[in-house]
Amino acid sequence: MTTTTVPTDPRLNALRTLLDGRWAPVREEVREQMGRFRPVRPGLSTEEYRARVLDLMGELAATKRPHAGFAPEYGGEGDIGGTVVSFQTLGYGDLSLLVKAGVQWGLFGGAVQVLGTSRHHDEYLRAIMDGELLGCFAMTETGHGSDVQHLRTTATYDPATREFVIDTPEPGARKDYIGNAARDGKMAVVFAQLVTGGATHGVHAFLMPIRDDAGAAMPGITISDCGEKAGLNGVDNGRLVFDHVRIPREALLNRFADVAEDGTYSSSIENENRRFFTMLGTLVRGRISVAGGAGSAAQKALALAIRYGSTRRQFADPTTGEEVALLDYRAHQRKLLPALATTYALHLAQEDLVAEMHRIQAPGAVVTDEKAQRDLEYRAAGLKAVATWHATSTIQACREACGGAGYLAENLLPQLKADSDVFTTFEGDNTVLLQLLAKGLLSEYGSRVSELGPLGTARFASGVAVEAVAEKTGLAKLRLRAVDPRSPQAQARLIHDRAEHLLASLARRLRPAIRPGSDQFGIFNDAQDHLLHASRAHVDAVVYDAIATAVDKVSDAPTRELLAQVRDLHALSVVEADRAWFLEHGRLTVAESRAVTAAVNDLCASLRPHARLLVDAFAIPESWLDCPLLRTS
Amino acid sequence: MTTTTVPTDPRLNALRTLLDGRWAPVREEVREQMGRFRPVRPGLSTEEYRARVLDLMGELAATKRPHAGFAPEYGGEGDIGGTVVSFQTLGYGDLSLLVKAGVQWGLFGGAVQVLGTSRHHDEYLRAIMDGELLGCFAMTETGHGSDVQHLRTTATYDPATREFVIDTPEPGARKDYIGNAARDGKMAVVFAQLVTGGATHGVHAFLMPIRDDAGAAMPGITISDCGEKAGLNGVDNGRLVFDHVRIPREALLNRFADVAEDGTYSSSIENENRRFFTMLGTLVRGRISVAGGAGSAAQKALALAIRYGSTRRQFADPTTGEEVALLDYRAHQRKLLPALATTYALHLAQEDLVAEMHRIQAPGAVVTDEKAQRDLEYRAAGLKAVATWHATSTIQACREACGGAGYLAENLLPQLKADSDVFTTFEGDNTVLLQLLAKGLLSEYGSRVSELGPLGTARFASGVAVEAVAEKTGLAKLRLRAVDPRSPQAQARLIHDRAEHLLASLARRLRPAIRPGSDQFGIFNDAQDHLLHASRAHVDAVVYDAIATAVDKVSDAPTRELLAQVRDLHALSVVEADRAWFLEHGRLTVAESRAVTAAVNDLCASLRPHARLLVDAFAIPESWLDCPLLRTS
Repeated sequence: MTTTTVPTDPRLNALRTLLDGRWAPVREEVREQMGRFRPVRPGLSTEEYRARVLDLMGELAATKRPHAGFAPEYGGEGDIGGTVVSFQTLGYGDLSLLVKAGVQWGLFGGAVQVLGTSRHHDEYLRAIMDGELLGCFAMTETGHGSDVQHLRTTATYDPATREFVIDTPEPGARKDYIGNAARDGKMAVVFAQLVTGGATHGVHAFLMPIRDDAGAAMPGITISDCGEKAGLNGVDNGRLVFDHVRIPREALLNRFADVAEDGTYSSSIENENRRFFTMLGTLVRGRISVAGGAGSAAQKALALAIRYGSTRRQFADPTTGEEVALLDYRAHQRKLLPALATTYALHLAQEDLVAEMHRIQAPGAVVTDEKAQRDLEYRAAGLKAVATWHATSTIQACREACGGAGYLAENLLPQLKADSDVFTTFEGDNTVLLQLLAKGLLSEYGSRVSELGPLGTARFASGVAVEAVAEKTGLAKLRLRAVDPRSPQAQARLIHDRAEHLLASLARRLRPAIRPGSDQFGIFNDAQDHLLHASRAHVDAVVYDAIATAVDKVSDAPTRELLAQVRDLHALSVVEADRAWFLEHGRLTVAESRAVTAAVNDLCASLRPHARLLVDAFAIPESWLDCPLLRTS
Repeated sequence: MTTTTVPTDPRLNALRTLLDGRWAPVREEVREQMGRFRPVRPGLSTEEYRARVLDLMGELAATKRPHAGFAPEYGGEGDIGGTVVSFQTLGYGDLSLLVKAGVQWGLFGGAVQVLGTSRHHDEYLRAIMDGELLGCFAMTETGHGSDVQHLRTTATYDPATREFVIDTPEPGARKDYIGNAARDGKMAVVFAQLVTGGATHGVHAFLMPIRDDAGAAMPGITISDCGEKAGLNGVDNGRLVFDHVRIPREALLNRFADVAEDGTYSSSIENENRRFFTMLGTLVRGRISVAGGAGSAAQKALALAIRYGSTRRQFADPTTGEEVALLDYRAHQRKLLPALATTYALHLAQEDLVAEMHRIQAPGAVVTDEKAQRDLEYRAAGLKAVATWHATSTIQACREACGGAGYLAENLLPQLKADSDVFTTFEGDNTVLLQLLAKGLLSEYGSRVSELGPLGTARFASGVAVEAVAEKTGLAKLRLRAVDPRSPQAQARLIHDRAEHLLASLARRLRPAIRPGSDQFGIFNDAQDHLLHASRAHVDAVVYDAIATAVDKVSDAPTRELLAQVRDLHALSVVEADRAWFLEHGRLTVAESRAVTAAVNDLCASLRPHARLLVDAFAIPESWLDCPLLRTS
């Protein structure tokens, strides 16, 4: 690992230690391994690119890195957190490799591990870990992507032959966008409505072969190719259509439910709805991994744009006659530095999320608390949405900040942009995920309110009402305190208070939907923008807390001071973007709101000299950044 | 031309007539011609794609459409406006063809026409119009893209041989990103610093061969290929390096300046700075064309996403049990409908801009007013920036609104997105263009203020000061009037008042820079975000006026009513996005600001049933929209 920063800045190591966090050795190992992979260069045909990524999959399997996430009894290390972190680090390199690895070891292997039982583990896990058995995760259908509970593929049990019959009953039930399906996958975990004895029991997962050893589709299965995509063309996405394909009873991944030989259905989770969400919940790792991958992509784009902007000069200063570096222009700082600060905050929030997932899901974890699992899912949903949208907009800003050079494939940004674009869609459409989070927040809020008891609820409700009246005049209760935007207490208060207020007022707006006969959809839909706002505000609060906590933990004073400015810039750019809300709700006066904008400008200027240091601390392998854009500037 | 709208809605024709405007016959002709071109399908290699686009260039030349923009004495029609409109209409199809055509007939041919004289016209114009002589517009260099005045390529006159010597003195002076250079261009208009008798006279344009008939680079010229790009891969962008290449004296495009045989320099424009901007100003057509092309790309993306969102259903309404169309969700409406309204407004502003350009530049135009030309340039700069950013964000929203399907190349959005991305950069980086506009606005503002005389200026200044004090309390003078967001008067007042206020306060902030010895760059840079805001606000006002005027001109009442809602949605989403500013400057009360958001939601809901009609009115040829996304939904 080499970086070109002046090696004497002692803050570099402190920042890197902070960012690398608990799984620093894993990150280091992956960086070192990636440094040895030959980067994929642009200009390959789709076939060449797929072949190249398949080769890289072999190299990756040979490092044994993907094994770490699997259970120790099958040769893994049970290092759930480390696996997600290694996935995230792969995001500095080719994103097709990241996604294909995610499909193989995260989605496909993960589903077998988590939804299957020893009969599946014994037979398949080692081959999956070694990359000898490549597989697909066949959930999404052409007609149903977001509403997975209403998939149409059927798995009908036939007790006469003790088989399930997998079928695609209509064109919309075709499995679509399935990674590894078009070319390399030999098996698939297929999600289908389980039917036995005439009764439907909801979506379950089945492990079944889709190709024979020679690579031909199995009888009754039609495989087609999704063809060229906007990006990720090293991944072979395809479509699967099943025509009454028979698979043995044991193909059901039966950790949570089973069908006896006679067709009797049984499950440890009685409620069908809860069973469905429990099964989906085990797959939360995919969402967390995508959030992490998006973070790495954003970091790489910023490393390119900030290094370019530090050396590229355009237009002369009329006083000195010298051309000015792009990053010395305020407009350029505004394009890149708040995004950099938020990238730091998201990285730290991601680290917290991974640690929490590890705490709950690692083998031997003592957490059996269903609420902790639910909270993890909600947080993962929210962070995935915010992190991937952030990556999309940041990479776009970086492309524009590099001008025409940023449009050339040789300069890496085009591929980064094209590849990461779909992160906002896959593993859950972002808008749908924010709604999932809102649902969780509302339910938790409901419990909190009901714990107050009748008297408390009445007081609480009247407090809310008073506040609502106060807000109509723009003068809410909080206005007694002046807001100093540079104070972390004020930042925390603004960001948390907004999240809480949006949630409380959302709950109030949705309350009529409880009444029998109410137009539930109409009430929900009228509040949908409010609901999405509440979710984002909640994620903002979680992300703010992550960076605020991290600042407090840094022992080296100059590093802490620098990171405090990063925190301030992140917090204040979040407040600035939504300052209309703060004004409308009496949380900021006009003078304070303007002070927030002024503070963002000042922070941009004072972080500008440290921008290069801040991106160097990501420690992205130089071989994965090397491009003419950085060489000529 | 077929569309699948119910043909009986009488508003369709009224809207189409409005949108097609003055050059409706040109649009119709191009649509009809395009309908006959076989669309370029994804999956071509770069070489195949370039060859295919070259073929299409031939088909386009054969239609004689590109001829229309050239002077009648050479077989053209002098229809400057019609040419830009036809370029814009091409934007519904393949954007590589649009850009290659723009390079050939707009930039290259346009420069020869406008910067050259009869010696160039007689020899080359017909071959250029017929597409027999393909050429490049070699302005941008690796080291200087935005700051064109400081290009480094030199053209040194040698009186001994009566030749110019074109040279690339340093690596940064390499001509870069030049369309038509890598493969097809035979000649180039090369921009270089003209040096004669030891004196430099600034940037001038030279017409010179770069390839021989066999396609080999001319002696002394090194041509390389920019290679794969994020998009527009049907255009062969390349780089040119000149090693003391000799070209005859007559190669200088000498409309504005000439060099006599003995090396004496002469120009009809004495001031070097003014001469430079006059030469650049003649090229304003390129910017206007890019703004138009961006508009077409946004329209096409919206047509795809809105048709998909009208039929694609996901999640059931709990009351009816029926799945809900995506476009019935408020969040989905919010993603697409304000963007659609703004696309309408931009289209109408573009039409006004084209008409003004035609008025000034068409052969026989009587406008010799330098101010009109300057105003046109400023308006073109601003509209290009706003229209191309709008296209980038709209196409992104449309991609996301189509989910995974929107990521597949077969569904057209990926290519639209990748191709149009660089529109924010080429023909002038958007940030730089907004600064150019601000410069123009400030200079015009300065004249307005100075026309007030000393007393008027003092009154004016004290008025501004009073207002500034009033704003600190959030209570400005305008607060005496209540704002009804649905009233066009209120919309116009809000949007215009913001533009004027931002400009006046900007002028105040920049005033100290006039003082001798001031830190001009520091003062400018501290106000750069303010300056960009002022420019955008100005463009918003121009765009608002375009749609407001258009509404008033519609005679059919139901169409007018519909278009008034489009105007309202555009205006209010502009106000909503910047409502913090309106609150901070006392232009909206808290209650009014919230009413703006509520009105945007209401307008989204009331326009939703007409969304399909509104996109059908763009009359995009069905053959250019046809894709699986629309067929399966």
